[in-house]
Amino acid sequence: QLNELLAGIPLAELIDQWDSLEEEQKKEVFHALDREDKGDLLISLPASEQAALTEMIGDGDFKDLLQDMEPDDLVDFIQAASSEVRKTLWRKLSPESKREILYLLRFDEDDAAGLMTPRFLAVQSHISVSQALHFLRRNAKKVEMVYYIYVVDKERRLQGVCSLKDILTAPDDAIIENVMEREIIAVREDTDQEEVAKILETYDVMALPVVNSQNALLGIITFDDIIDVIREEQTEDVYKMGAMEGGLDRYLDSSIVALVKKRVPWLIILLLVGTITTNVVHHYESLVIGAAFLFVFMPVITQTGGNTGSQSSTLMIRGLATGEIHFRDIGTVMLKEILVGLIMGFVTGGVIILRSYLLPPGIPLFDAAVIGVSLTFVVVFSTFIGALAPLVIHRMGFDPTVMSAPLMATVIDVCGLTIYFETARIFLGL
Amino acid sequence: QLNELLAGIPLAELIDQWDSLEEEQKKEVFHALDREDKGDLLISLPASEQAALTEMIGDGDFKDLLQDMEPDDLVDFIQAASSEVRKTLWRKLSPESKREILYLLRFDEDDAAGLMTPRFLAVQSHISVSQALHFLRRNAKKVEMVYYIYVVDKERRLQGVCSLKDILTAPDDAIIENVMEREIIAVREDTDQEEVAKILETYDVMALPVVNSQNALLGIITFDDIIDVIREEQTEDVYKMGAMEGGLDRYLDSSIVALVKKRVPWLIILLLVGTITTNVVHHYESLVIGAAFLFVFMPVITQTGGNTGSQSSTLMIRGLATGEIHFRDIGTVMLKEILVGLIMGFVTGGVIILRSYLLPPGIPLFDAAVIGVSLTFVVVFSTFIGALAPLVIHRMGFDPTVMSAPLMATVIDVCGLTIYFETARIFLGL
Ligand SMILES: [Mg+2]
Ligand SMILES: [Mg+2]
Ligand SMILES: [Mg+2]
Ligand SMILES: [Mg+2]
Ligand SMILES: [Mg+2]
Ligand SMILES: [Mg+2]
Ligand SMILES: [Mg+2]
Ligand SMILES: [Mg+2]
Ligand SMILES: [Mg+2]
Ligand SMILES: [Mg+2]
Ligand SMILES: [Mg+2]
Ligand SMILES: [Mg+2]
Ligand SMILES: [Mg+2]
Repeated sequence: QLNELLAGIPLAELIDQWDSLEEEQKKEVFHALDREDKGDLLISLPASEQAALTEMIGDGDFKDLLQDMEPDDLVDFIQAASSEVRKTLWRKLSPESKREILYLLRFDEDDAAGLMTPRFLAVQSHISVSQALHFLRRNAKKVEMVYYIYVVDKERRLQGVCSLKDILTAPDDAIIENVMEREIIAVREDTDQEEVAKILETYDVMALPVVNSQNALLGIITFDDIIDVIREEQTEDVYKMGAMEGGLDRYLDSSIVALVKKRVPWLIILLLVGTITTNVVHHYESLVIGAAFLFVFMPVITQTGGNTGSQSSTLMIRGLATGEIHFRDIGTVMLKEILVGLIMGFVTGGVIILRSYLLPPGIPLFDAAVIGVSLTFVVVFSTFIGALAPLVIHRMGFDPTVMSAPLMATVIDVCGLTIYFETARIFLGL
Repeated sequence: QLNELLAGIPLAELIDQWDSLEEEQKKEVFHALDREDKGDLLISLPASEQAALTEMIGDGDFKDLLQDMEPDDLVDFIQAASSEVRKTLWRKLSPESKREILYLLRFDEDDAAGLMTPRFLAVQSHISVSQALHFLRRNAKKVEMVYYIYVVDKERRLQGVCSLKDILTAPDDAIIENVMEREIIAVREDTDQEEVAKILETYDVMALPVVNSQNALLGIITFDDIIDVIREEQTEDVYKMGAMEGGLDRYLDSSIVALVKKRVPWLIILLLVGTITTNVVHHYESLVIGAAFLFVFMPVITQTGGNTGSQSSTLMIRGLATGEIHFRDIGTVMLKEILVGLIMGFVTGGVIILRSYLLPPGIPLFDAAVIGVSLTFVVVFSTFIGALAPLVIHRMGFDPTVMSAPLMATVIDVCGLTIYFETARIFLGL
């Protein structure tokens, strides 16, 4: 029986394999799932699969599924859905859900309020522990997070928070006011989601309350949605490091046009910046006519400069992102990087001297030494600029991730080639 | 008063600013903190700061702090501490803590068991909900996670799990056997931490039970430690993308030697692979003597090839990591990439023709066209190989992250220059 077969397959596996199933199989499998798994499957699938799936769900079934979904997940679902799915869905929502969703849609997706659910447990401070517990047991099914009870005054201003652990370990007749934690860790409705993630991580809490400027409690953000934010921000940073901009849509769902749009702008910017190298190289054309080996080693010099620069900038960008490195550390950092750059410069210089003297194309030892010394200078310079640029850019209030590896490599190409040719000119006496 | 001043500063801020305080200030601030914050501060600081701090803590205070720490955090603390701190610490631990820690130290840091705490709530299935609740209230203070109660048989084999929400919403006289969830989501002791993180993320649970091959419950992993794993794996991947290997030690705590060791191996590998370009360029030396403009455009060709290649490989690596792209999608993916590559090739080719014809150094239109056509070929090739390589490497069971941007750029330099010179040779009839 399919039901029994499915019981053996974890849902995660099913979600992962979904797009390799035939239409007919999808239908069968979906109908064999229990209600909870149906809902989980629906919200976990990419938008294109959701559309197909919503068509095969019966009307009553769909209403049940929507009923089970948390309002914040419903909002995400609506935001990601195609306009057809959205229309079908909207017709099937209860008036209460519609109200909640319209409320949540007012907030920016990337802000704290865009992550919150408006369903949480709140009590006033004068009630007793046993009353609070009774209230909790009566209302637990209506909310996702029952492990924190928020304490508010009559104007819904946040006064404190009790974990269910606090409540369960307090005597039954204790007053909430004396049990609650008053040093509340809360976020403002417009706090950026990256900041929200850092706060939840630091304090290891399962949920964070969201308040407005009057300290009124609007909703709560749960840890699972923060994990999704961390993954999303991670993808965003990886894309930036790979010289791409734009949305986080799934690759397989993206059209050719969308993929080109994401990639071509940076490519052209980098190309235009990079063409400055043509002017640099043109400037040294006569030098190269006198020493043709300089031409042969050009690519390896720019590569190695780019690699050292991107190592330094990666370390700085990551350190700035995790909050380990601050601008105030600039002295220590630059000193370290110069020393590291010198050592790496000598090592790579030595390697290229040996390589170019001993192996084909095989150049005279003096020429090899010129290449080696130039490379040392280029490596030291690249290490220095690779570390300095992110610190300064971050200080100026910009995100240093966007100017990471590729832009660094391009800038270093221009400067590195100048250093290379100038060093060679001095040593060769040209 | 310092105490009042400190009450206004969130702990996260204090941890962040700690290394900018004077020794004397650190001492004062630390002593003014309450016991819980002292512990949180101690485990959140880098190893070097921890050593200094442990020296200024009184003997009794230190014992209290250790008493408060969770066993898994204690293990992390011991693993990160200097050997002196470790010795002082070991002397102050209770025999029970020592036993727990020796048990936990047996497991690999990067495996599920290396993340778990051996303190959790477990009951047998025949007791009632009210008995379970009573048991929970009595033992809540001894464990970190009270929101899941694990159901085990007499041999400690995992039978099911009840969330506290399930228990609170069930009638008092219900039997745990009928309340518990039997489809348990558990991980094996040797499951890799990255896999553990994916499971917790998919099911949105606050903790995962860890079992051995006999299904005996060894411990549980909580969501906060999974968030740390996600961050750690993220840093590891970012380092790999920036051509670095090695530990995740804080930058500011790393010695010059440690930094060089992390960076120089990849630099030399890339340099040696990169020197193959010298042979390629040497091979085409006579061609360049006949058409000097080819020399001038070399850097911009290799850069653009590297950038397009790293865009494709970044998309593939990220898609493979998040589980969105599978090897079975290779047909769709390669077709998409070829089409995207063609469009981007035409665009960049067009841009470089205009740029090199119109702006200095200004070359004849026919020469500019040769550069443009070559660039188009290089971009198409780079897109293709940038997408194909990660898919194949992943399929072979290796991690494609390590061969991302820098190695891709190096390989593309070698092939890209060949394509460039060959195209030029054909068009120029040389
Ligand atoms: Mg949302
Ligand atoms: Mg944490
Ligand atoms: Mg939420
Ligand atoms: Mg949610
Ligand atoms: Mg969620
Ligand atoms: Mg970001
Ligand atoms: Mg963002
Ligand atoms: Mg550990
Ligand atoms: Mg999740
Ligand atoms: Mg823990
Ligand atoms: Mg922890
Ligand atoms: Mg990894
Ligand atoms: Mg790892």
